[in-house]
Amino acid sequence: MMGLMEDVMPPPIVKLKRELGGERIEVDLSQGVPFFSPPKEALEALFKEDLHALSRYTPDEGLPSLREAVAEKLRSENGIHAAEGEVMITPGANYAFFIALSATVRRGGRVALLAPYYFNHLMAVQILGGVPHIVPWGGGRLNLEGVEEALDKGAEAVVLVNPSNPTGLTFTRQEVKALLELTEQRGAYLLSDETYEHFTFSGRKHTSPAALSGGNGVVSIFSMSKSFGMGGWRVGYLHYPQGIEGDLLKAQDTVGICSPNPSQRLAEILLREHSPHYPRSMVPKLERSLEGFTRALDRVGVRWVGGEGAFYLLVKCPPGVTGWEAAKELARRWGVLTVPGEPFGAGGYLRVSFGNLPPERSAAAADRLGEALEELYGSFEGKGLKYTEG
Amino acid sequence: MMGLMEDVMPPPIVKLKRELGGERIEVDLSQGVPFFSPPKEALEALFKEDLHALSRYTPDEGLPSLREAVAEKLRSENGIHAAEGEVMITPGANYAFFIALSATVRRGGRVALLAPYYFNHLMAVQILGGVPHIVPWGGGRLNLEGVEEALDKGAEAVVLVNPSNPTGLTFTRQEVKALLELTEQRGAYLLSDETYEHFTFSGRKHTSPAALSGGNGVVSIFSMSKSFGMGGWRVGYLHYPQGIEGDLLKAQDTVGICSPNPSQRLAEILLREHSPHYPRSMVPKLERSLEGFTRALDRVGVRWVGGEGAFYLLVKCPPGVTGWEAAKELARRWGVLTVPGEPFGAGGYLRVSFGNLPPERSAAAADRLGEALEELYGSFEGKGLKYTEG
Repeated sequence: MMGLMEDVMPPPIVKLKRELGGERIEVDLSQGVPFFSPPKEALEALFKEDLHALSRYTPDEGLPSLREAVAEKLRSENGIHAAEGEVMITPGANYAFFIALSATVRRGGRVALLAPYYFNHLMAVQILGGVPHIVPWGGGRLNLEGVEEALDKGAEAVVLVNPSNPTGLTFTRQEVKALLELTEQRGAYLLSDETYEHFTFSGRKHTSPAALSGGNGVVSIFSMSKSFGMGGWRVGYLHYPQGIEGDLLKAQDTVGICSPNPSQRLAEILLREHSPHYPRSMVPKLERSLEGFTRALDRVGVRWVGGEGAFYLLVKCPPGVTGWEAAKELARRWGVLTVPGEPFGAGGYLRVSFGNLPPERSAAAADRLGEALEELYGSFEGKGLKYTEG
Repeated sequence: MMGLMEDVMPPPIVKLKRELGGERIEVDLSQGVPFFSPPKEALEALFKEDLHALSRYTPDEGLPSLREAVAEKLRSENGIHAAEGEVMITPGANYAFFIALSATVRRGGRVALLAPYYFNHLMAVQILGGVPHIVPWGGGRLNLEGVEEALDKGAEAVVLVNPSNPTGLTFTRQEVKALLELTEQRGAYLLSDETYEHFTFSGRKHTSPAALSGGNGVVSIFSMSKSFGMGGWRVGYLHYPQGIEGDLLKAQDTVGICSPNPSQRLAEILLREHSPHYPRSMVPKLERSLEGFTRALDRVGVRWVGGEGAFYLLVKCPPGVTGWEAAKELARRWGVLTVPGEPFGAGGYLRVSFGNLPPERSAAAADRLGEALEELYGSFEGKGLKYTEG
């Protein structure tokens, strides 16, 4: 008998901040939070609603009118042939992944996560008593051979995050199609986290695997938090194949009951009035930030991965230095907060989030990170790490 | 290897409504929803806040200012010596129970539920791979011998819902104290769901076990949804003993990330400005509804349990008739929706919720239920059930 949470890793950003104590952070490149909020008109429209009605529970599955708006969005934006009854509204995309996992994987079942993975996915597998199977990093592309090996070993589900957190890569339609063919052949589920669907750069396009499949075997997960800058409202949604609705409902009823009602109404207003142009209007701003960061990193000569989507870059630490060590040095000595790569399965890297920077602050932040990394690298040239655990 | 959700029962109210199909319900006595909403001033104050700030995530644990307001409320209203750092804000009390369970019970660990129990608690134990140990119904009082037996068999946690859903009983200070002594002696956790703390009748008082303990071993769970009529906003909170904070955070970060930010701000306004007088002002209204219902039931001569707290009555079905059968008959023939007792571990009973009725509608609803039960009982006098599964 094992402690349920014993082997679950602690949430890395919380852990890092606690270990840093009262360290003053001047440039926060840690959490994956967009710099923008929902458009003001949408919030004003919400506050004209009937407050008594907004205070009631909604159905477990979500407000029927929102489910309909989501199904329409999935059809028109994602090419998924979705009906209202194949959609569930959830308190965020993390929660959506958690209940999707509970409805698709058996106790002790193997779940393939593609390194570098999103740490909360690993934690969800651990909490629900699944067995994580880490597919090794594919050197910047999707490691299909690794996925095949996981399936050979009996993986019941494969998790794809595309565009990727933490790598900032956007996998191509060909890659997604090849992956889907593998999971379909073996009868495994594909759990597709499409949180960053709207944020792809340099003309790259996001592919929803459910648009390529006959509709079976893919659970697609979406986030209002990222697309519309409304993380605090807690609303996401998922599209599911036939057969798992009952199990999704069991989890929904037990854990969250329903997504917040006011948040669902706001989501409906946003999907009907502001999708996809509002999230898309943020892309050029994010691209400008990205350019500033890659230029600063290239100037220093630091190796990095990403720049294709989401709002992350994965940045290499000096040789022999762990992400934890580098992140603490950067925070303590230069007031720059990044996230160690280790909890993502990317040891010796740092995740840099440029999404939470308003465009007018991003150039200065990029320069600051560049200078900090330059000094960090300099301090390790043959000298070893002057770091003590604090 | 077992299907993770296979043995988890379906959410009963959802199941019932689906089986009833398009049946027109005129009197809804099913869901545990208070008839009132938060006071208008509180909602108006919320809508004057900075909407950009409200759209951001809060810390996993909750807004510091709300955690402080909760700690103050726990000290002044519940007699719990709470510090801000021993409080976590959650998206509702169901969610709070789920993460509390994940942080206190081992995989395969035994969890004692006191019949009749709250069905979502059983489902949570099942989802997390625990072993439910059902303590038999104590004939209207707390079955301490049954709890002792569960502890003898190795139960790692005992779940108390007080005032009780679904029985509507309020356990006395003596009962709570005796239960706490048992769990403390055996080093088991007491998971105390105090969702209905404000709703006790005929002068009965609610007892928080954490107020009687040295602070160890009790996780106390509270609901803003019930106390302030804000189920749709999804905010609850829990008070926890030292040692489990890290594990609570792991679950929080993975599943919900944080409670909705606007809801947390609303909760803070309510706790600071309207607690406890607002929920207490509802008690006389609920008591009048309760009186109407018990009078109607007594007139028919139907056996019932409850009337001490929460807003439920547990009503006996005709001999040999299951709660499912009776609930469907009442819905189909009289348009009255109640919940079968079976999912609560109270077979042959119906749960009647009178909390969702505005006072002006409750007398008519009580009469309607009385008439429907009178006819239902009459139709079974020696004739057997004229019921076919639909």
